[in-house]
This record gives sequence, structure tokens and C-alpha cells, in this order.
Amino acid sequence: MAKAETIKKRAPATTRRSPVGSSPGTLIADPAARRSELRLTLISPQKFKTIENASIDDLNTHCDKWPVIWLDCTGLANIPLIEEIGRIFSLHPLALEDVVNTGQRPKVDFFEDHAFVALTMIDDAASHRYEQIAVFFGRNFVITFQEREGDPFDPVRKRIESSMPNRLRERGADYLAYALIDAIVDSYFPPIDAASELVDHIEDEMLRSPQKHQMQQLHQLRRGTNVLKNVLWPLRDALATLIRSDVSYVRAETKVFLNDTLDHSLRLIELVETQRDMLTGLIEMHLSLSQARTNDVISYLTIVSVIFMPLTFLVGIWGMNFDPGSSPWNMPELKAYYGYPLSLLFMALVAFGLIAFFKWKKWL
Amino acid sequence: MAKAETIKKRAPATTRRSPVGSSPGTLIADPAARRSELRLTLISPQKFKTIENASIDDLNTHCDKWPVIWLDCTGLANIPLIEEIGRIFSLHPLALEDVVNTGQRPKVDFFEDHAFVALTMIDDAASHRYEQIAVFFGRNFVITFQEREGDPFDPVRKRIESSMPNRLRERGADYLAYALIDAIVDSYFPPIDAASELVDHIEDEMLRSPQKHQMQQLHQLRRGTNVLKNVLWPLRDALATLIRSDVSYVRAETKVFLNDTLDHSLRLIELVETQRDMLTGLIEMHLSLSQARTNDVISYLTIVSVIFMPLTFLVGIWGMNFDPGSSPWNMPELKAYYGYPLSLLFMALVAFGLIAFFKWKKWL
Amino acid sequence: MAKAETIKKRAPATTRRSPVGSSPGTLIADPAARRSELRLTLISPQKFKTIENASIDDLNTHCDKWPVIWLDCTGLANIPLIEEIGRIFSLHPLALEDVVNTGQRPKVDFFEDHAFVALTMIDDAASHRYEQIAVFFGRNFVITFQEREGDPFDPVRKRIESSMPNRLRERGADYLAYALIDAIVDSYFPPIDAASELVDHIEDEMLRSPQKHQMQQLHQLRRGTNVLKNVLWPLRDALATLIRSDVSYVRAETKVFLNDTLDHSLRLIELVETQRDMLTGLIEMHLSLSQARTNDVISYLTIVSVIFMPLTFLVGIWGMNFDPGSSPWNMPELKAYYGYPLSLLFMALVAFGLIAFFKWKKWL
Amino acid sequence: MAKAETIKKRAPATTRRSPVGSSPGTLIADPAARRSELRLTLISPQKFKTIENASIDDLNTHCDKWPVIWLDCTGLANIPLIEEIGRIFSLHPLALEDVVNTGQRPKVDFFEDHAFVALTMIDDAASHRYEQIAVFFGRNFVITFQEREGDPFDPVRKRIESSMPNRLRERGADYLAYALIDAIVDSYFPPIDAASELVDHIEDEMLRSPQKHQMQQLHQLRRGTNVLKNVLWPLRDALATLIRSDVSYVRAETKVFLNDTLDHSLRLIELVETQRDMLTGLIEMHLSLSQARTNDVISYLTIVSVIFMPLTFLVGIWGMNFDPGSSPWNMPELKAYYGYPLSLLFMALVAFGLIAFFKWKKWL
Amino acid sequence: MAKAETIKKRAPATTRRSPVGSSPGTLIADPAARRSELRLTLISPQKFKTIENASIDDLNTHCDKWPVIWLDCTGLANIPLIEEIGRIFSLHPLALEDVVNTGQRPKVDFFEDHAFVALTMIDDAASHRYEQIAVFFGRNFVITFQEREGDPFDPVRKRIESSMPNRLRERGADYLAYALIDAIVDSYFPPIDAASELVDHIEDEMLRSPQKHQMQQLHQLRRGTNVLKNVLWPLRDALATLIRSDVSYVRAETKVFLNDTLDHSLRLIELVETQRDMLTGLIEMHLSLSQARTNDVISYLTIVSVIFMPLTFLVGIWGMNFDPGSSPWNMPELKAYYGYPLSLLFMALVAFGLIAFFKWKKWL
Repeated sequence: MAKAETIKKRAPATTRRSPVGSSPGTLIADPAARRSELRLTLISPQKFKTIENASIDDLNTHCDKWPVIWLDCTGLANIPLIEEIGRIFSLHPLALEDVVNTGQRPKVDFFEDHAFVALTMIDDAASHRYEQIAVFFGRNFVITFQEREGDPFDPVRKRIESSMPNRLRERGADYLAYALIDAIVDSYFPPIDAASELVDHIEDEMLRSPQKHQMQQLHQLRRGTNVLKNVLWPLRDALATLIRSDVSYVRAETKVFLNDTLDHSLRLIELVETQRDMLTGLIEMHLSLSQARTNDVISYLTIVSVIFMPLTFLVGIWGMNFDPGSSPWNMPELKAYYGYPLSLLFMALVAFGLIAFFKWKKWL
Repeated sequence: MAKAETIKKRAPATTRRSPVGSSPGTLIADPAARRSELRLTLISPQKFKTIENASIDDLNTHCDKWPVIWLDCTGLANIPLIEEIGRIFSLHPLALEDVVNTGQRPKVDFFEDHAFVALTMIDDAASHRYEQIAVFFGRNFVITFQEREGDPFDPVRKRIESSMPNRLRERGADYLAYALIDAIVDSYFPPIDAASELVDHIEDEMLRSPQKHQMQQLHQLRRGTNVLKNVLWPLRDALATLIRSDVSYVRAETKVFLNDTLDHSLRLIELVETQRDMLTGLIEMHLSLSQARTNDVISYLTIVSVIFMPLTFLVGIWGMNFDPGSSPWNMPELKAYYGYPLSLLFMALVAFGLIAFFKWKKWL
Repeated sequence: MAKAETIKKRAPATTRRSPVGSSPGTLIADPAARRSELRLTLISPQKFKTIENASIDDLNTHCDKWPVIWLDCTGLANIPLIEEIGRIFSLHPLALEDVVNTGQRPKVDFFEDHAFVALTMIDDAASHRYEQIAVFFGRNFVITFQEREGDPFDPVRKRIESSMPNRLRERGADYLAYALIDAIVDSYFPPIDAASELVDHIEDEMLRSPQKHQMQQLHQLRRGTNVLKNVLWPLRDALATLIRSDVSYVRAETKVFLNDTLDHSLRLIELVETQRDMLTGLIEMHLSLSQARTNDVISYLTIVSVIFMPLTFLVGIWGMNFDPGSSPWNMPELKAYYGYPLSLLFMALVAFGLIAFFKWKKWL
Repeated sequence: MAKAETIKKRAPATTRRSPVGSSPGTLIADPAARRSELRLTLISPQKFKTIENASIDDLNTHCDKWPVIWLDCTGLANIPLIEEIGRIFSLHPLALEDVVNTGQRPKVDFFEDHAFVALTMIDDAASHRYEQIAVFFGRNFVITFQEREGDPFDPVRKRIESSMPNRLRERGADYLAYALIDAIVDSYFPPIDAASELVDHIEDEMLRSPQKHQMQQLHQLRRGTNVLKNVLWPLRDALATLIRSDVSYVRAETKVFLNDTLDHSLRLIELVETQRDMLTGLIEMHLSLSQARTNDVISYLTIVSVIFMPLTFLVGIWGMNFDPGSSPWNMPELKAYYGYPLSLLFMALVAFGLIAFFKWKKWL
Repeated sequence: MAKAETIKKRAPATTRRSPVGSSPGTLIADPAARRSELRLTLISPQKFKTIENASIDDLNTHCDKWPVIWLDCTGLANIPLIEEIGRIFSLHPLALEDVVNTGQRPKVDFFEDHAFVALTMIDDAASHRYEQIAVFFGRNFVITFQEREGDPFDPVRKRIESSMPNRLRERGADYLAYALIDAIVDSYFPPIDAASELVDHIEDEMLRSPQKHQMQQLHQLRRGTNVLKNVLWPLRDALATLIRSDVSYVRAETKVFLNDTLDHSLRLIELVETQRDMLTGLIEMHLSLSQARTNDVISYLTIVSVIFMPLTFLVGIWGMNFDPGSSPWNMPELKAYYGYPLSLLFMALVAFGLIAFFKWKKWL
């Protein structure tokens, strides 16, 4: 349950906002933001170069000398640095504000010579913590801003560093941006599959014996799918917007690939919707299993009560103190020779009769 | 619960209407309306001037001498004053009627040289009281009508009064109108976050022990989210209409900022929808927890009944008055040397046997 | 409940239809229709004249001599009269058929020189009886057909008769038609407000003590909102159609006012949807309150049973007839000096122990 | 219940299909199909002629000599005959396949010189059996294919045979087709009205005393409305397609009339949706009434238990056999002069005290 | 239940995916994929030829010599073979990736000279296992990729091999592709019909006696319909896309036939939706039947308790040991001449009185 608890605590209302009424476009760091670190990757069809812990100087030096550069900024605490990057690449102030105020809905904004894509990724599969990844890309640059270290970009980096000639180096910045977005979208599959397995596990356990804590787990999981749904729908819309766009820095060849990513996002939505339906069905079934169990218990109580109540009444009869001496009518059976065994026999008959009746009624 | 109670009492059916069939465009004051007070803010890129408790004369004096003027009217009781303002700025009579008949759905109407934006804000976060704010803006003026004192405009005022050169003074009336609308939209976040925390609190309490009053609180909160949803959807539509408009007094630069406000309204809708889903889930879980509790109680009753009923029957047997003197068959055990301890032992065995049975059945 | 009962009985399946397969456009009077009466109002900007119980002759005399004439026909039994009116104003036969076959969905049909608007109004606020009002209007005439006397047009009549110059006399037939339609739409507000108050009343009562009859009232009210919703949605569509139309006899100035009426209809739909949500919530809450009550009762039963069953068992023990004379093992406590008070004390201890256990378990 | 049973058994999955993979356009008779019979109606504005049991020869003889001919084929067993008709009128093979494979969704297909309209009608109001009616019409012919005798066309036939000049004879084949389609659509009203009355009847019965069989009836009726909804929505779509079409053989005058039929289909959908809502509400109410009844029974059990358990305990006390001879502490009350009446009085006081407690708790 | 179990285990989250971040268009075989086998069918209007276990050489030999060739590849393990086929027919790499990564949503992608249709079919009716079938078709070829042997294409093969001249051989590759797609769509009908019969069977059983396992079966079946719905909706969309396309290799004549297939897919969706509604209704009914049963049991318990509790109290009274010798007030009835029979009679009267009371209350 620790996991489910985390979903809840993190959950939805966590968009960071500039103070109400502050001038739009003003960057104010989240107090919890991490220290910013830059990693610069310079790419040409023939070669590539990676500068870890790059500085603004590195950026200025290499900026226009390579066909494609990818600047990856991890941690959003260093506002002057971010503003400087914005100045170098002429990024729009409102977009930069969305970078710093994390927790945005996934979206795409197009500016004159660059696009801004805000995405959400599951940062930590174990605790369902979400992280915002902002991607800017223009004709010859891609800039990514992440909240924390740890991203799904390692396979992309490996492909760039691969010794074979490859599309990632040959094609332009838009193809690199696509590859990064695709990696983010695909990173949703493993946690959803894991949740799916957890649901299967709870179901099996529940069918064996329905427990109260399962109900809570199912509710927490359903809440998790609600949060996911709220992230995936705008993600899908953002991808569709990207494909429909007619800006010059997104080429038609790249759109074919983005279409594939859109297909993946549709598949993700379908998985989440199906999981949600399953969870709703399981919650209903849990209720009906509990109900069935209560019915069993009540039936059991009823059967025992209905058998022993008449018997107790009968023994009470023969426990009465009517004085047989005052009248021959008064409890003559108490003096009968076979009185006691016959009365026991009679009670046994009543009990078996009732049991037979219940069997016939199919209650036993 | 006081808070929830207030939501209910205020709730939805509170549009003020002109008497059925009255001539449209006739202004009739709400008997409960507050005394009107004007505050005139005169703005130019270089300087600004604020006149508290302004009069119509002040208005006429300054009207055309400043690039942008902002007239803020608090309280809607003074109909002649409002009509006079309408005349000075040529505001449309139907729009003025909507100003006075508070409780309109959020909407935008475009007229030849000005737009009318009706908005709703949460007037008092503690009691969820709603208040209508009407915003008129043209090429060089912004007029706001509020029902009561207290508004989310203070940060905007501070930015106007700021000593640094700033966009709010440099850009025209449409940007000022945007800033005011943005402040209203952003003022929804704090109460929604507060409600979210209350929901979390109720959930924790409920998981510890489900109480009847929690159910009522959850229902009241869900009703509150329904009301919010009914306010936020038309708000979103109004903002989208403003962005799609092609009137000359809303400039493209301002639309970029309005787009940001639209994003915020979408985020608000998402928050409210998520909260609603959570509340529905919690209501279901409350039901199932109560159900589980009843099951526990019934099981407990059943176990105790099923143990003591046979025992009571047994003691009843040996309490019968069959006369052992009349026949050797009549209750010979009563005279047995170890009769009493053996009978107690037998009853103990029955009791432990049943308890073992329940353990095996997993009912204990 | 009498009221709710009426909603049900009147309810939905009450469109009158021509006999299956009859030639379309054939007028056949509803046997229950009232006697037709005409009232002719002649309007010019300077003056007006009203003829009660007008005849076809009156109509022919005045028809073309006034800028605007309004013919109001109450009661639909007199088919030849209605056909004659149709002939004079060249009304379309299918539209006339819809006038006579009451219970149509609200709709607008445009013909070459006149429009036909079928509307539904709440005829009697107390019994929720609906009535169809048909409005025809062309360039210089408005014709209204009502099922029964009693309409929401009195304020319109007063404004026509007003001594001051007014728009209703100055503007053309389309503005008069708008005023009548607006009066019909606004007449929905009072009954909806009344229903809203009834819901509040039931809620308060229910929270004090949930009763079976409240459930039935809530269901009847929800059914009422369903019927209303079915009327209001096509009403909204009809108004939107009217505003979008580009026929010459609906002028742009009038459309601005119709837009206001459309806003009212949207507000009505919102009120009804909110009411419906509230009713659904209350029905759920009623169920959960009843459930909670059953739980209370069962807990009470359980507590009493669990306390008295062991006690009754104990008194049964000491009521057994084992013969203390046969053996020193047989019920020696019966002869003990403090046997009786000690046994009572023991039973008291058992009882208090159980009560303490329940307190600890929070069941008491 | 017999009726409801029939709905179920007939229910939805009954589209006849050609064997999987058979060549499209191949006609294969349904083994259960009836013997085909033709009825030829020849129509001109001045006169008309009807040939019962017409043959293909009759068809060839009269085919081109009358302005409009209506061929009505009842029973679909005679595949060669149907193929011959298809050849004479050049009907499309896929459309003919849909004629024979009954159970199609209502739809319209347009071909070069004729349209194909597949409709569903309620064949037998008592058992809710559906029947497919296929209507082909071109410039001068209408062909109808029915599964069984019995159709809603009698009024149309009467109007054709009417001695007065009438539109059905004057206007072309499209108007005749409209009249037939309109008759089919209108034939839905009586069974829906009947179902509505049945629902009212069940509701009244249920409010008097909720029974298990009512629940089943309500479920069966709701299933019936589901089936109807699935028929009526495509019917509406088919009519809308017919009105939007721009083929030469559907004239604008006829479309005005088809619009009227579309209105009827919308009204039907509304009726069915309302009925469905009512049924869902009644099912919920039935559940809550049953629940209320259980609550009553449990309360009754509780009250009786709670009164008699303490009393039985008390009589048990004075039934104990403590020996008053061994000690003055042992049950001295048994020898008290008023012991017995006082003990009875005490028990009566306990009972009345409990009853008073229940009255105060409002449980009685 | 074995079957239902299988639905669950297979269920939805089974899209195979390339490793996260791998270069798009890279083919990586599923480890569970079957060995690939090719079957080449060469078709001309006059003749045809089938080559089982065809090789790439066969393909190269015959490729351009026949008007239409159909290459059917079963098993997806042989990646080089699939890549070779892609090269020969210039298939798009992303489409080939979707062939290998089975579990795609049904969809259509158009490329310059061929279309790619991904479809899902129910592979094994008994265990509801799904299988992806990919169809490529261009001007003169159709290529199908299947996961396993066993397909619904046998009737198509028979029609190709038929000795009579037939459309499948005369028309081009698009008609063959249509025939294959149609066969796949039609193969959904039998399992859905089977599920429908199972539902009917469960319903009958349930109405006789509601059992816990039926609830589970109903839930599993509903889950199955959810999965089907998720497959059929994109199938419908894919067919509609195919019909709306304006690529040269899909001819208008073929679109008429595809429209027929679209109708079938709509019918399938309708069947599944109706089945889902039925299942939801049955689940609700099951709950209410269980509820009714609990009510019966509780009523029975109540009746027996309420009858025997007073009787047991009465026998307890006369079992008390008040000493009649100490006082004439002490239990004088014990010495009465008819005391015992009168007391029995009194108890019988109490019992019958209570039974009469229950009859009157309609509880018996």
C-alpha cells in the first residue's frame, strides 16, 4: 500500500504557479528545484561530441558550428542560467515560465523559429512520481529541461554515439526532437504493464478471499489511472498538433515518424481506459463478493438460531415447575417411564426435520 | 460542516433576473446590492494617477486625456450612475443589464468598439460565495463592475504602481483587461487546493473509522465541484471566444497571453474533474467500508450466537424436571458421581470445537 | 406527493399524432381541445388597438392596414377557423398540422415569407402540466396558437399598451415575436426555482431522519427534471437555429436580443442539469443514510445479544438439577454460603467486561 | 412475463448473414423465409389498378405504361423471382443481398437511378418481433420487400384507392416511397405507448408492495428499450441521409415531408430514451424499497430480541437452584411474601422501559 | 470458467514493442514468434497457380508475370525473409515494424504505391486468443502476414480456385484485399454469437438460483466485451479511412464492397454494445436477486425468533423457583388443577397470534 499512498499524496493539484498577479514571463525558481547542470551534445552526420557540465561559454563557442546541437539542462534552480539560454536561442518568455513552473499540462506552442513541447513523464516507476520535461527545438537545436536526473534518453544517446552511420545524426533537429519525444512516450509502457500485473494479482487474491484492504488498493489504483488519463489525453493532443503543424522546422519525413508516436499514445490511452474499466469491474465484484459473504454468515446464523430456538423452548417446557401433585393434568410426562429418552428423541427429530427442510430449501 | 452548508445554501439557482416580460435593457437594482463606489486609475507609460471615490465629473475630466483609463465600480445599487457610465462609454444596454442582473454564466460579447466579459469569481474562499465581475474594455478604457469590495486585483494595482517601467503601463487597454481576467482566473486555484486538502483529510479520517458525517461532507464537496464545473466550462469558452475574435481592439500580442490564461482555465477544469472523480471514488469507498463494518458486526453476532445457543440448550436439558424416581431412564446423569464436572467439560468442548471451526472457516 | 404523481401521469408519451397513415397536412382536432377564441392586437408606433373575441372578418378588415398585427388564438378545437387563418396568412399545411397535433418537440421551420416556432411552456406551475405554444411570424404579423387560456404574455401586453413610446411598438413583427418567445422561456424560471426549494426542503428533512417517502419524492423530482431536459435542449436548438437563420424577416438587431434569450435557455439547462446532479446525489445519500441506520440497528442488536447470551447461559448452569446429594462434585456452589451473591457479582462482571470491550472496539 | 421473455429470446444477434466468405451479391434464401407473393399497384393521377398475386409477366406488361408502379413482395423464399425483379429494375446486387439477409441496420444506399432503404418495423406488437422492410424507389417505381404478411401500409393503400384526387396519385414515386416510410416510422408509436403504460402499471404495483418478479420485468423492459434504441438511431440517420441527398429522383417537395418523418423519428428516440431513464430510476427505486423492507424486518427483530433477552435472563435468575437453606444470602427473594408479583412487575417495568426507549429513539 | 480465465490472462496489455529507444524501423523478432512459411498464389482472370512453401526465388520469378499475386506469410520469426519481402515490394519500414510488433490497434496507412492495413482477428474462438493480420496491397499484389496458421481465408481460396469465372480473379488486387478483409471482419460473428448464447444460458441459470460463480462469469464476459469493443472501434475507423481514401490503387467499384464490410463492422459494434448493456443489466439483477435472497433469509430468522422468544420467556416464568409455601401470592398457578394445559394453550395462542400478525403484515 505504500505505493498507492504515494500516488495519492503526490497527486493532481501540483502545478507550480507564479504568485497570483505576478507579471507574466517572470521566472521564479521553485524552492525545491535542483541545481542546474548542462550537457551539450554536438552532432553532425560524420561525428559527434559530448560536453558534460557545459557552461554558457561552451554554448557560445559551439552554437553555430555544428548542424545540430542538443542542450540538456537537468535541474531548474539556476534561473539566470535558464534566462541566458533563453536569450541565446531567443526562446519565448511565456514558454520559459512554463519550464520553471513545472506541472503544466502536456502541450505544444509554436513560435516563429522554434516550437515548445511540454511533456510529462513518470519519473520514478516505483512511486509514480511525475516529472515535467520541456523540449524546445528549432532548425538546428534541441533543448531539453528536466526537473531531476534520470531520463529515458539513454537509448537515444547510445544511438547518437553509435559508430554506424545513422538517421539520428543524418537527419536534422526535428528528427532528434522526435526521437526524444518518442522515448518519453514509450517510457509510459513499463509502469502501466506493472500496474496491470498488480491488478491481476489483486484479482486472484480477491477471488480466493475478499479483504477490506483490497478495496482500498483498487480505489488507489483507479485514482492512479485517472491521473494517467489526465496526462495522456493532452499528450495525444500535443502530438496531433505537432503533426498538423505547417511550420518550416518540422519536416514531412519527421511527421511520418511522429504519427507512429501518436499511435503509441493512442495505444497507451486504450490501455489505461481498459485498466480503468477493469478496476471499476473489480470494485463492483469486490462489493458483490463481500455481500455474498455476509449472506453466507447470515444464513449460517439463521440456520443455527432456527434449530436451537425451538429446542431451547422445549427443554424450557419440561423445566417448568408445575406441581404434578396438585393435578393429574400437571406435567404427567415427567413421571412417564420413557419420558426423558422420548423427549430427547423428539428434540432430535425436530432438529433433523429442520435440517432436512433447509437442505430442501437449498440453504445448506 | 458549516462551510459545506454554505455551498448548498448559496448554490446554483441564483441568477438575478429582470421581472418576467420587462423591457430588455431596463436596469433594475437588486434590493441586496451594495452602494456603488468608483475608483479611477489613469495610466500612461510614464506615469499613473489613482482617484478614489471618483465622481462622474472626474470621469468626464480625464476620460480622453490618458492613453488608458481603468474605472472600477464596486457595488451595483446606484443605477443612475451605472447608466451614466454606460452613456459616457457607449456601452450596450443588454450588457449593462447583465451587469446588474448578477449570476450570469461567464461569457464574452463583442460590440462595435468594446467587448463585454462577464466572469464569476469565488468571492470568499471560506464560504464559497460567488461574485460576478463584469469587465468592459475598448481601445483606451477598461471598466470593471464588482458586486462587493474585495477582489483579486491588488497584484495588478501594485504592478501598475511599480516604479519600474512595465508592460501593464506600456501596452494598451486590452493588455490591462487580460491582466485583470488572468488575476480572476488564477484566484480559483487557492480555494480548489484547499478543497483538495480537505478531501485528503476526510479520506485519512475515513480510512481510520468511517463515520456518517463524512458521507455528508463528501456529498457537499461533490456538489461544490459540480457548481465549480458549471462556472469553469463557460469561463473556458469565453476565453476561447476572446482568443478567436478578430476585433481590432484585441491585439495579437495580447492573445498570446490570453492563451496562457486559457491554459490555466483548462488546468482548473482538470483539477475540478479529478477532484470530482476522487470524491465519487471516496463516496463509493465509504459505502464499502460501512458495508464491511456491518459485515464485521454481523459476523461477531453470529459467532457469539452460534456458540451460546447450543450451550444454553444443553444447560436447559439438565434443568428439566423429569422425575428420576419414576424410572431409571429418567435423567440418570443427574445422579452420576462426576455428572456435573463432566457436563461442564462437555460444554467447554462444544464451545472450543465451534471456535476451532470458525478459525478454520477464517471467520475469526 | 400529489404533485409528483401528476408529473408522472402527464409525462412524456403525449405527442398527439394524426392517425397512422393519414394524409400529411390534414388537420384533425384533438377531442380534448378547447373552443377557439381569437384576440387581435393591432400595433403601430403611435397607437394600438385590441379586439377581443375577434372574428375572421375583423382579421380581413385590419390585416394590411397596420404595420404589425398580432393574432392570438386560444383553444384548438375550431379546425375550420384555423384553416381559414392559415389561408389568409399562407401558412404551410405541415406547420398547421403541428399546431393542432400538440406535444411537438420545440423547433423552428422557415418558409418563404414566415417562420414557424413550436414551443412548450409549463402551463401550470403547480401540476407541471405542459402546453404547446405555436408562434408564426412574418414581415408584418405574429400569430400565436395556445392550447388553453393562461399564458406568460401579460407583461408583453402591458408593454404594448404602455403610454410611453417603446420598442415593442416601434420595431417590427420579429421583435414582437422575440418578446413573446422570451416571455415563454423566462416562464420556466419560477417552477424550476420552486423545485429547487423543494429539493432543499427534502434534503433538510432527510438529514434529520431518512424516510421511505423521501426516496419516492426524489425519484419523482428527478423524473421531472428528465422531462424538462428533453424540452429545454430542443428549445435551445430552436433558438440557435433562429439566430443562425438568414431569412429577410428576422433582422440582425432582433438577433442580438434573441441571443440574450439563448443565454437564458442555456442557463435553464444548466439549472436543470445541476438539479439533476443534486437529486442523484441525494438519492445516493438517502441510500447510504438508510444503510447507516440499518448498521446502527444491527450493532445495537448485536451488543444486547452478546451481553445477554452468556448471562442467560450462566443462569442456566445454576438452574440445572444435578443432585448434590449423590456426589460432592455435583454443584457444590449451590450450597456455598455466599454462592448466590457471588454468582450475581460474577455475572455483573461479565456484563461490564463486555461493555468495556465494546467501548474499546468503538462499537458503543 | 411471457412477453418480456420473448423480447429476450428474439433479441439482438439476429442478422442473417451469407456464409462467411461467400461471394458478395450471392442470394441465398433463409430456410425460414416465407413463400414470395407479389402485389402490383399501378398508379396514375386519374386512376389506379391493383393486381394481387401478380406474376413477372404482369410486371413486364405494365412496367413502363403507368407513371408510377408499386410492387410489393411479401415473403423472401423465392430467390429466382427476387433476382428477376432485380434484373427488370436493374437493382444493385449488394442491395438485393441485404434484402434477403434480413436483420440489417436501417440504412439508405444511393445508386445511379434508384435508392435502397432498409428499414426495421415492429412486426407484432404483442411479442415485439421485428421485421425488415426493404424499399427501393427510382423515378417511376417503388418496390417493397417484406418478410411476412401484415404491414402498416393499409392506410396508404386506402389513400391511393380514395375516390378524391390526392397527392399520393399525383406526385411521383418518391412521394409514395415517403408515404410508405412514414407509415413504417409511425407504426413504432403504439407499441412504445403500450410499453409506457406497462411501466406505469409496474410502478404502481411496486409502490404498493415491491416483489422480486417486478425487478425482472423492469430489466426485461429496459433490455427492450435498448434494442429499440439500436434500431431507431440508424433509422434517424437513414432519414437524415435521404434528406441531405442530392439525387435527381428525390425532389425538394418530398424532402419537406421527409423532414416531418425525421421529426417523428427524433420524437421516438426521445420517448425511448425517457422510458429508459424511467426504467433505470424504477430499478434503483425497487432496490431501495427492498432495502427499506429489510431494514423494517431487521428493526422488528432487534426490538423483540432486545425486549425479551433481558426478561429471559431475569426469569433464568429466579430459576436458579441456589439452596436458600444453606445461607440467608442464597436467593432470599424466593421466600419473600410479594416476591413473585414484584418480580413480574419488575419485568413489566423493564419491558415498558425498553419500549419507551425505542419510541424515543424513533425506532417504533 | 476456464474460458473466462483465459480472456483475462491474455487480455489487453499485450502490444509487443521494440525496446524503448531503439531506432524506428528496426525489425526485432518476438522470441515467441513462429517459423515463417510463404504461400504464393498467382492469379489471372483465366487461370491461377498456388505455390506452397514458396521461396524468395519463386517470388522473384513470378513477381511481374501475373496480373495479381497474393503472398501469404505465416509466422513472423524469420526477420531476414520479411525484410527481403519488404525490399522486393518496397514496403515502408515503419509498416514492417508494425507487422513484427504484433498487437497493434487496427489501422490503415497509405504509402505512395501501396496501403498497409493492420487488423486483429479472434484466432481461437474457444480461448478468445487474438492474432494480428497485416495486409499490404498495391496495384498488382496483396501480401498478408499472420502470426500463426489458421485463418478465415479458406472460403476466399476456394472462390479463387473455383472453376467458374469469378470476380476474385477478374478484378484487381484491391478487390482481393477487400475479400480478405471482409473474411476477417465476418469471422467475428461466430464467437460473438457464442458469447451471446452463453449469456442467455447464465441468465436462465441465475433466474433459477443466483450463485456466486455466475457473478464472476458475468464480470469476465463483460471484460471480454470491453476488449472486443477496443478492437472493433479502430477496425471501423480503419475501414472508413479506406473508403474515404483517394489513392489510385483503391478503385471506386471496390469501395462499394468495402462499404458493405463497414456496415458489418457497425453491426458488430452494435452487437457488442448490446451484449455489454445486457451484461451490466444482468450483473445488477444478480446483485438484486442476492439481496432478495438475503432478505428472505433474514425474514425467516426474524419470524422464528419473534415467535420463540416470547414462548421461551413464558416457560422461563413457570420455571422460576418462587416458594409457593411462603406466600399465597407466590406462583399460585403452579398448583392450579388445569395450570399446565392452560399454560400450553396460552403459549399456542401467542404463537398463532404472532403467525396471524405476520400473515397480515404479508411477511409470510
